[in-house]
Amino acid sequence: MPKYVPGKFAEEIAREYGIEESDIIKLGSNENPLGVSPLVSKAICKNLDTLNIYPPIDAADLRKAIAEYIGVPFRHILVGNGVDGVLDTLARLFINEGDEAVIPTPTFSFYQLSASILGGKPVFLPRDANFDVQVDKLLETISERTKMIYLCTPNNPTGNMMREEDIGRIAESTDAMVIVDEAYVEFADKNVAHLATKYDNVVVTRTFSKAFGLAGLRVGYCIAPEWMYSEYMKVYQPFSVNRLGVIAGMAALRDKEHLERTLKVVREGRTYLIENLPFRTYPSQANFVMINVEPYTSGEVTEYLLRRGIIVRDCASFTGEGTDRLIRITVGTMGQNRVVVEALKAFLEEH
Amino acid sequence: MPKYVPGKFAEEIAREYGIEESDIIKLGSNENPLGVSPLVSKAICKNLDTLNIYPPIDAADLRKAIAEYIGVPFRHILVGNGVDGVLDTLARLFINEGDEAVIPTPTFSFYQLSASILGGKPVFLPRDANFDVQVDKLLETISERTKMIYLCTPNNPTGNMMREEDIGRIAESTDAMVIVDEAYVEFADKNVAHLATKYDNVVVTRTFSKAFGLAGLRVGYCIAPEWMYSEYMKVYQPFSVNRLGVIAGMAALRDKEHLERTLKVVREGRTYLIENLPFRTYPSQANFVMINVEPYTSGEVTEYLLRRGIIVRDCASFTGEGTDRLIRITVGTMGQNRVVVEALKAFLEEH
Repeated sequence: MPKYVPGKFAEEIAREYGIEESDIIKLGSNENPLGVSPLVSKAICKNLDTLNIYPPIDAADLRKAIAEYIGVPFRHILVGNGVDGVLDTLARLFINEGDEAVIPTPTFSFYQLSASILGGKPVFLPRDANFDVQVDKLLETISERTKMIYLCTPNNPTGNMMREEDIGRIAESTDAMVIVDEAYVEFADKNVAHLATKYDNVVVTRTFSKAFGLAGLRVGYCIAPEWMYSEYMKVYQPFSVNRLGVIAGMAALRDKEHLERTLKVVREGRTYLIENLPFRTYPSQANFVMINVEPYTSGEVTEYLLRRGIIVRDCASFTGEGTDRLIRITVGTMGQNRVVVEALKAFLEEH
Repeated sequence: MPKYVPGKFAEEIAREYGIEESDIIKLGSNENPLGVSPLVSKAICKNLDTLNIYPPIDAADLRKAIAEYIGVPFRHILVGNGVDGVLDTLARLFINEGDEAVIPTPTFSFYQLSASILGGKPVFLPRDANFDVQVDKLLETISERTKMIYLCTPNNPTGNMMREEDIGRIAESTDAMVIVDEAYVEFADKNVAHLATKYDNVVVTRTFSKAFGLAGLRVGYCIAPEWMYSEYMKVYQPFSVNRLGVIAGMAALRDKEHLERTLKVVREGRTYLIENLPFRTYPSQANFVMINVEPYTSGEVTEYLLRRGIIVRDCASFTGEGTDRLIRITVGTMGQNRVVVEALKAFLEEH
């Protein structure tokens, strides 16, 4: 079974390296640098008297609010305990012992875990030198046993996107479910949510953990073909999304200003990082920038930063060739971005 | 696939029957009649500034607090998104396609769902006339394919408990995992948490949803043999317990007064219901009382109460013989208990 390796936590690094927790800069988990919307905090404090009551089983009010945000009828919206919860529910629906799941690598490592736990076999397909999915090769990789194809766009950890026509081509060439993970799509220029209402085998997954700043509350969702609702609910863990997650998600959708501020900070910070990081960077449509630290290893550079209280994401744990040269850096506040740029320059001066 | 049927929601009944939501009495989901502890509300409002950060992956601080409450080393404590999340994680660990899960019925219907989703086959064993598990018959039911045995004590929806020596006898007679679900154990006179440190194949599941009043936040846990920690974490959905669930669980454990008040209200109300309900009742060690409404059906009695804004649990959806005569009534505040007693008396007068 593959092991899921999360980004490091501030508390852990503070303890391990003897640094004050408040001095740690956490740019390893693609969290929102502005924190949570004040509307969310207010909504939560107003709704604490019903915490003894089970959450609404299918989070209907939240699903309606999401449907309005996306612009689809609300039976197309399904939720879960974070996007991980959505992915696990989809795997329960579609993966049986011995089924195959096609995964272009490197990418978010939860896909292979989620499929493997249900007895699925991940079939890895390396991306090309620019980390683009090799669509022709992917089509050749699809077999009769292929039940799921995981396409992350913008891709974690590389930051690049897939073209809509490529996703459509894949969907049209197979009966397997095409999972398009748009966890980072708010930071991008376009999205493909509409493909989930166009094709019967496309699901687009989304999260409140990134642009909406609710990683701590575990609210994920997907846009799915209409036929899927009743099937999904059969294998859905009842009450998956907690009561405050429902309330916070709805409040976050109402706070358009907080979202706009977040997008502005991320886009400006992303440009700054790409222009100033003293290593090879890659174009990014997400809230992180990936660098290649050759001839150094991701492990030694990451360790250097950790000792200075800066957490970034060593990509060595991602499946794929050469990931031990890759580091993913979350776009932070401009102050944080400057610190990480200076620290990497110092690394180069010392090595 | 079996379908999970939850208790009815106040909002749903208000809409369907044209009743003010605030007039609804909700005694169908075994929630805490006193609501949430004030220490929990305070702790949540103090910790809203970190909602943009992922929860601690293994909820270590909460697990330590639970370990202290139970009195075991903290590696014996595992958590999940509600007890349903714990049960699903255990099923991922132990159930493969074609494996059997022994379930004495009637009982909590999530067990059969959780095992079935992973390709397991529920093997139902009817309880005796007093709803006690027929231990000899259960031992005969165990086969080479048996991987899990689900024992709920106090049992939902019947309220009775298993004897510790019977659980020990079952554990000693098989290599299958014995899941002892003690979701309601705080309302009972004794518990068997220590069996999970005595036997390598006993797991005791618990929840914050009942006595601790946190159903809305989805915090479940189990006491497990020490060897299980590393295995459990391999198939555990990372960040399953949300950040506020962690904080709320720790605060709830600190508020011993709220727990004591809850237990007092439930025990007094339980005695009142058993003495005054105008139908056959069964002894209960939980925060609910089951009645047998023969010669009426559970459906017609439940419907009569719903029209009066009183939600109780029709047991007809539980697997087993004769469950369409059974109704489970959550112990509420004394005022609520009186209303349900009077309404059932009125039913009998009218029929």
